[in-house]
Amino acid sequence: MQSTTLGQLAGEFGFALHGPPEARISGLATLATAGPEDISFLANPSYRSILSETRAGAVILAEEDLAACPVPALVSPDPYLDWARIAEWLRPPEPVSPGIHPTASIHETSSIHPDASIGPQAVVGPGCVVGQDVQVGPGCVLDRDVRLGDGTRLVAQVYLGPDVTLGQRVVVHPGAVIGADGFGLAMDSGHWHKVPQLGGVRIGDDCEIGANTTIDRGAIDDTVLEEDVRLDNQVQIAHNVRIGAHTAIAGCVGVAGSTRIGRYCMIAGASGIGGHLEICDKVVITAMSTVLDSIDRPGQYGSGIPARSHREWQRILVRLGHIDEYARRLMGLEKKDRESGKS
Amino acid sequence: MQSTTLGQLAGEFGFALHGPPEARISGLATLATAGPEDISFLANPSYRSILSETRAGAVILAEEDLAACPVPALVSPDPYLDWARIAEWLRPPEPVSPGIHPTASIHETSSIHPDASIGPQAVVGPGCVVGQDVQVGPGCVLDRDVRLGDGTRLVAQVYLGPDVTLGQRVVVHPGAVIGADGFGLAMDSGHWHKVPQLGGVRIGDDCEIGANTTIDRGAIDDTVLEEDVRLDNQVQIAHNVRIGAHTAIAGCVGVAGSTRIGRYCMIAGASGIGGHLEICDKVVITAMSTVLDSIDRPGQYGSGIPARSHREWQRILVRLGHIDEYARRLMGLEKKDRESGKS
Amino acid sequence: MQSTTLGQLAGEFGFALHGPPEARISGLATLATAGPEDISFLANPSYRSILSETRAGAVILAEEDLAACPVPALVSPDPYLDWARIAEWLRPPEPVSPGIHPTASIHETSSIHPDASIGPQAVVGPGCVVGQDVQVGPGCVLDRDVRLGDGTRLVAQVYLGPDVTLGQRVVVHPGAVIGADGFGLAMDSGHWHKVPQLGGVRIGDDCEIGANTTIDRGAIDDTVLEEDVRLDNQVQIAHNVRIGAHTAIAGCVGVAGSTRIGRYCMIAGASGIGGHLEICDKVVITAMSTVLDSIDRPGQYGSGIPARSHREWQRILVRLGHIDEYARRLMGLEKKDRESGKS
Repeated sequence: MQSTTLGQLAGEFGFALHGPPEARISGLATLATAGPEDISFLANPSYRSILSETRAGAVILAEEDLAACPVPALVSPDPYLDWARIAEWLRPPEPVSPGIHPTASIHETSSIHPDASIGPQAVVGPGCVVGQDVQVGPGCVLDRDVRLGDGTRLVAQVYLGPDVTLGQRVVVHPGAVIGADGFGLAMDSGHWHKVPQLGGVRIGDDCEIGANTTIDRGAIDDTVLEEDVRLDNQVQIAHNVRIGAHTAIAGCVGVAGSTRIGRYCMIAGASGIGGHLEICDKVVITAMSTVLDSIDRPGQYGSGIPARSHREWQRILVRLGHIDEYARRLMGLEKKDRESGKS
Repeated sequence: MQSTTLGQLAGEFGFALHGPPEARISGLATLATAGPEDISFLANPSYRSILSETRAGAVILAEEDLAACPVPALVSPDPYLDWARIAEWLRPPEPVSPGIHPTASIHETSSIHPDASIGPQAVVGPGCVVGQDVQVGPGCVLDRDVRLGDGTRLVAQVYLGPDVTLGQRVVVHPGAVIGADGFGLAMDSGHWHKVPQLGGVRIGDDCEIGANTTIDRGAIDDTVLEEDVRLDNQVQIAHNVRIGAHTAIAGCVGVAGSTRIGRYCMIAGASGIGGHLEICDKVVITAMSTVLDSIDRPGQYGSGIPARSHREWQRILVRLGHIDEYARRLMGLEKKDRESGKS
Repeated sequence: MQSTTLGQLAGEFGFALHGPPEARISGLATLATAGPEDISFLANPSYRSILSETRAGAVILAEEDLAACPVPALVSPDPYLDWARIAEWLRPPEPVSPGIHPTASIHETSSIHPDASIGPQAVVGPGCVVGQDVQVGPGCVLDRDVRLGDGTRLVAQVYLGPDVTLGQRVVVHPGAVIGADGFGLAMDSGHWHKVPQLGGVRIGDDCEIGANTTIDRGAIDDTVLEEDVRLDNQVQIAHNVRIGAHTAIAGCVGVAGSTRIGRYCMIAGASGIGGHLEICDKVVITAMSTVLDSIDRPGQYGSGIPARSHREWQRILVRLGHIDEYARRLMGLEKKDRESGKS
């Protein structure tokens, strides 16, 4: 990592500096572990209690936390975002040497930009087009007619199926499978008949796809992620889904076929979204919810149930199993009450 | 894709044709995007509203939708199945050139049929038997003593463990792991002791295994999928499970160890099936359900809760937490009522 | 497998033998499938009914099951654990031939112990250290600065990211991704800004990581699994999580970022654990539960709902949707009752 001073950082990023401009910064660390040459940050209020004990060289924080900071501070309107910027600046991504590793297998009909890097054991099939500064990491497999926009990075062991198109600056993490067949079946005299899956996948600029996430190719048209969509690990996106720009989906979420999700949605972990739904823009789904109906109003939705002690939960479950009976008994009492009132 | 005429299609598949037999068909498309040389289909009633505006060259549809169709039509008793057949006929799968790619690594004790295709960077371990017309795609790994029946296809980056046997015409999508160790642990003086996993996996003819799905080897006997079982992406099948013929399991479902699932079952997305259960034939499990008891009657079962607005759901959760108290209070009122009736 | 006698087994493992010491044992099998030269075991009480019909050569069982056993028996205080030991002894893991496969790609700055085995198509990046008796299976990818302790085994197609450290005797199953970037995003004028992920992953001795499981690298500090942690397949561990020694997590569980889980916890399948929580030692989470609050007392917790018939469940769901109204109506009745009591 390069080394800098607080004054340089304040100047570069436009911070108000509270502390000595000549102090050296040579590392990045959390409030709890930072030493006197490390810079740290405070963004999540639940870590405020650690601030008073930090030994960091400086802390990026909001105006309101300045008074409680025992060490030099850089005041930022958005400490988390500024932390990200500083971290990138201090630890820029390692430069990639362009070229095709001798163990990679490249089909002669594919076109690889001379500035692209193709890693060891990678496979590029026929008709692929790999743009400038693209990184195809070790063990990746590109089937046929895959297109990768400039600056896109497949970290390792990624699979891209036929007719998959990735925009610019897309990042795909290891084990992701983009463009496998969707789950299309028709019953034929007691035996399943596979329905051909003919579409591709189109992924916009600046998307990020997590490790072991799967995105199926469309049945006929393409499955589509608009720009700046962010998928965490082990997300499953079925065929024909369309996800709007800037939507973020946390780990272990599944989205069933042909559903359309709007822009700026946030879907928390392990939720399931049913098929053939329309979810409008700016919808937030809380953790482990089951979405089975379309949503046409922005806002927060959910159906997850927080765990409690087994004993208490078992008692609730037993009662829940009788809720229909209880409702009837309640109505019975109300009826009696009404009748006694009449008499 | 090859090109054809409506008359040829009607003759080949036995459709009643409503339109000019000489009209050209050269593409496959959805109702919404089809042009005058594309064939489309209508199977899901929720897309009926699009039918009246389609510009398709022809639509495969059911008798009852014929009157509403503004373009030529092919009437079918099962439009979705016939769509699948026509799509296969118009776009037959690309022929695979047999042979072993020079970058593949094949153990000398394995037997590869001369008509099989082994892709780049694939690894075939000792004692494997690869049948006729089998495709082992790029980056696949076959451990030892794997057997692949004729016409089976491993798309790419598939792992098959020791003693895994696949029948004929099985399709396995990228990232699937079949035959890894099951989760067997015995506690030994405060430390886990791994229980050896000795069984294999047997998968019947015509099964399909989704991307990043995992199927563990049996602990002692084999884990078994009977013929024509269909698993979507990111399904987890634990050791010793047996799944009956023609059962279909949607994405993100987990099945715990030693459970037996019957024939013709359908399990919707993200459900969890507990261990050591018996699920009989023709059981349907709805989305995001938790199955913790054996089921001995065909029919539909579930426990998923559809999401609603956060505010409404929070109110329900609070009340649910008091359901035991409410039931007691209801009974208290009933008791009072009975006593006042007596007096 | 090697062959032995009951007498030898009884001596080797200290069992009380009930049967002829000279009887041959040459195989391992379940109670239901065992033949006269196979040894089997009874640990799960639900299989007791099979004991009376077994044709096994001998059964490892608890004292209390001895009377019901129709064949020779080896009495053990812990039949499951002793089964594991005997299975290992009779079928020791196949010896691995050390050396680097000619198709593997090894960076010249990495250090590989001469007794380690690097399989076909594997990739070892710069700065890695691979210990004694380590197995790096076919198709594995080690990024940079990965350290593997003695006796550790990566079965196949495993990805280990930058600065990932595995202790001794760790087993990682195919498709696991350890050390991919965590899901860190800051919103910047309507566009997501990726927050650099700078930490590594540290995994203690004797851990086991299931197939297609993902463990993200820390954002700043490392993500940590202490010794003897056992993760099943398709588990997702987000950045900065810490999991205590001897904790076991079943398939399809997700743990969100920065959560700390204690020692000797057991988390059943498909549960979700929220972010920034503290779960103390010896907590058991039942299947498909949603943990959204910290837990500071050992014990069993849950929120999973067992499935029932669709009709019954739909009726419960309708009533649940009105639970707030019912509670109000109950209180209304109570109020009336109190008032009438006063009068």
